[in-house]
Amino acid sequence: MMNSMRFKPETLRKFTVEILDKAGYRGEEAKIFADSLIMANESGVDSHGITRLRTYAERIRHGVVDIHAEPEIVNDADTFIMVDSRNGMGVATCRWTIDRCIERAKKHGSCFAAVRNGNHFGTGAFHTMYGAEQGMLTIAMSNSSACVAPTGGRTAILGTNPMSIAIPSEKYGAMILDMATCTVAQGKVILANKEGNKIPFGWAIDEKGNPTDDPAAALKGAMLPFGGPKGYGISLIIEILCSALTGAYMSPDTKSFWRDFENPQGLGFFMGVLDISKILPLDEFKKRTDEILDRIKNSPKAEGVSEIFIPGEIEQRNRKLANESGIELGSNVYSELVALANEYGVSADILKPM
Amino acid sequence: MMNSMRFKPETLRKFTVEILDKAGYRGEEAKIFADSLIMANESGVDSHGITRLRTYAERIRHGVVDIHAEPEIVNDADTFIMVDSRNGMGVATCRWTIDRCIERAKKHGSCFAAVRNGNHFGTGAFHTMYGAEQGMLTIAMSNSSACVAPTGGRTAILGTNPMSIAIPSEKYGAMILDMATCTVAQGKVILANKEGNKIPFGWAIDEKGNPTDDPAAALKGAMLPFGGPKGYGISLIIEILCSALTGAYMSPDTKSFWRDFENPQGLGFFMGVLDISKILPLDEFKKRTDEILDRIKNSPKAEGVSEIFIPGEIEQRNRKLANESGIELGSNVYSELVALANEYGVSADILKPM
Repeated sequence: MMNSMRFKPETLRKFTVEILDKAGYRGEEAKIFADSLIMANESGVDSHGITRLRTYAERIRHGVVDIHAEPEIVNDADTFIMVDSRNGMGVATCRWTIDRCIERAKKHGSCFAAVRNGNHFGTGAFHTMYGAEQGMLTIAMSNSSACVAPTGGRTAILGTNPMSIAIPSEKYGAMILDMATCTVAQGKVILANKEGNKIPFGWAIDEKGNPTDDPAAALKGAMLPFGGPKGYGISLIIEILCSALTGAYMSPDTKSFWRDFENPQGLGFFMGVLDISKILPLDEFKKRTDEILDRIKNSPKAEGVSEIFIPGEIEQRNRKLANESGIELGSNVYSELVALANEYGVSADILKPM
Repeated sequence: MMNSMRFKPETLRKFTVEILDKAGYRGEEAKIFADSLIMANESGVDSHGITRLRTYAERIRHGVVDIHAEPEIVNDADTFIMVDSRNGMGVATCRWTIDRCIERAKKHGSCFAAVRNGNHFGTGAFHTMYGAEQGMLTIAMSNSSACVAPTGGRTAILGTNPMSIAIPSEKYGAMILDMATCTVAQGKVILANKEGNKIPFGWAIDEKGNPTDDPAAALKGAMLPFGGPKGYGISLIIEILCSALTGAYMSPDTKSFWRDFENPQGLGFFMGVLDISKILPLDEFKKRTDEILDRIKNSPKAEGVSEIFIPGEIEQRNRKLANESGIELGSNVYSELVALANEYGVSADILKPM
């Protein structure tokens, strides 16, 4: 990266906590939130990292998200619960919900939750990794602002509807799938449009619903689900689980994280865990999972491929690297953070590069 | 279809039951099996329908599948159970397992099952539709013979690893996603090879792992997961749930349904249900789901598209048509059935066209 600086993850976490403190968000919850934000940078998913801190802080300051809200179980069937986030912070709600699910799964083997009145839950991997580290098969999904057309349509009705599933293993750490159910982030189309580049056919459609490689046309149309009709089906199921089941808004009716500072987002989540140790020894499961992953890793590679990856392996490697040699931020992001520090009355000295 | 005949679904079910009877498989279980087989034809998924009857009957006759086996819960944590199929018929095992899951979900809200020592479970939709008709969110998945390479690899390690999810709705009946996690069935490549046609790039790779449009080269290589690395991740998770969790074989070690009449298949299944009515009135859920599906159905169509479909809608429409105007079988399939009737001493007169 040109004009970049490296920071210890701890530095960025500390900075995040300071900004949140000035916005009024404090204590253990704010620390967990900072962990989730910086974990995105550590994982190399910068789009979900500290570059979002300003928007989170503004949402808190405007009171559009309620940092004092406490989630509540509004319908309770032991191992299937309905949770009202009460417009609380998404990360806190999800952590609270996963904790409840784990508690119950430790008794009964499984527990799933439908969550309404939610706000952006950050990276799904943060929540599912937490479950997997406690020996749980963990799933988390969310609906989101609409930007994806159903197969055969030309209007954005479905959200990016991300889904994460984490599976405990020994040798590979938690194996974490964390994916949006659209082809690629719409941000990539916006970037191509800015830079005057074409986009690959298959990413998006124009306003008539035809495939396009022109990013400007794509921005007037809609993104496509990943994997054709199959991906569309998965995205739609996430939509139903996160809105019909929870009573949250459907994706097109949710409010923008980026632009609406007056109305709660009204997102829905679906999450749950299975306690592996209730039906077989966890070590045995991990060993068997490692055998499968070894078999994948050690299988013959396609011509020109240097390594076969398992889901989440690249992000895991990035986290290791970040802890050894820091997180790289571009000078533009650094400038944003310095401006943010000034606005919130936080000393920019905290942002000491490595 | 050229040289085709139409049969009432009931006729084909009756014929199936007669053949199974001669093979030694009788009673309620055999009827349910016949329902599952003919449901595939009714749905227009002929590849999983009566054309497979010979192989099922042969497997039963050779005793490679144990029709007398009774599934057993070998580890029981209330809402997460380990089931041993004991090499029983896949359809019967799955019906039994879903019944146990529903029983428990009615008490606790959720129940999931890992199943080992299984045989081919037919179409996943048969099992998930059964759950959805009882108000359950239902999921079923299976591993299978290896034919899919991981992203970046060139060797088939993953099975077609099908997954079905069914969601109750009112207006649309159960909404059923039922999909293999590979691009298309390998049968389509075999057919293209027979007919001397090219296949689209993206379906498969050659033995060096390069994309190919030559079906002969593809048959020496491997199929690809649907949707690139995301679909690969989903397929791998199904693999882990169906083998590492259950203790069943991993896909490359399972035995062929079509070719191995000496060794049990050793498949694994993962299935489960959530009882919607435990956290909100089922009618309310169905109404909200209908609203989402209406919104999809009524949204503007892409140029050249006559209708936007929801998952499983085409199959549902086919079932309605099949019940009104019968199931169409080609003359080659009909001849196969007549030969089968003669071999098993069943009167071919049962096969009366409409």
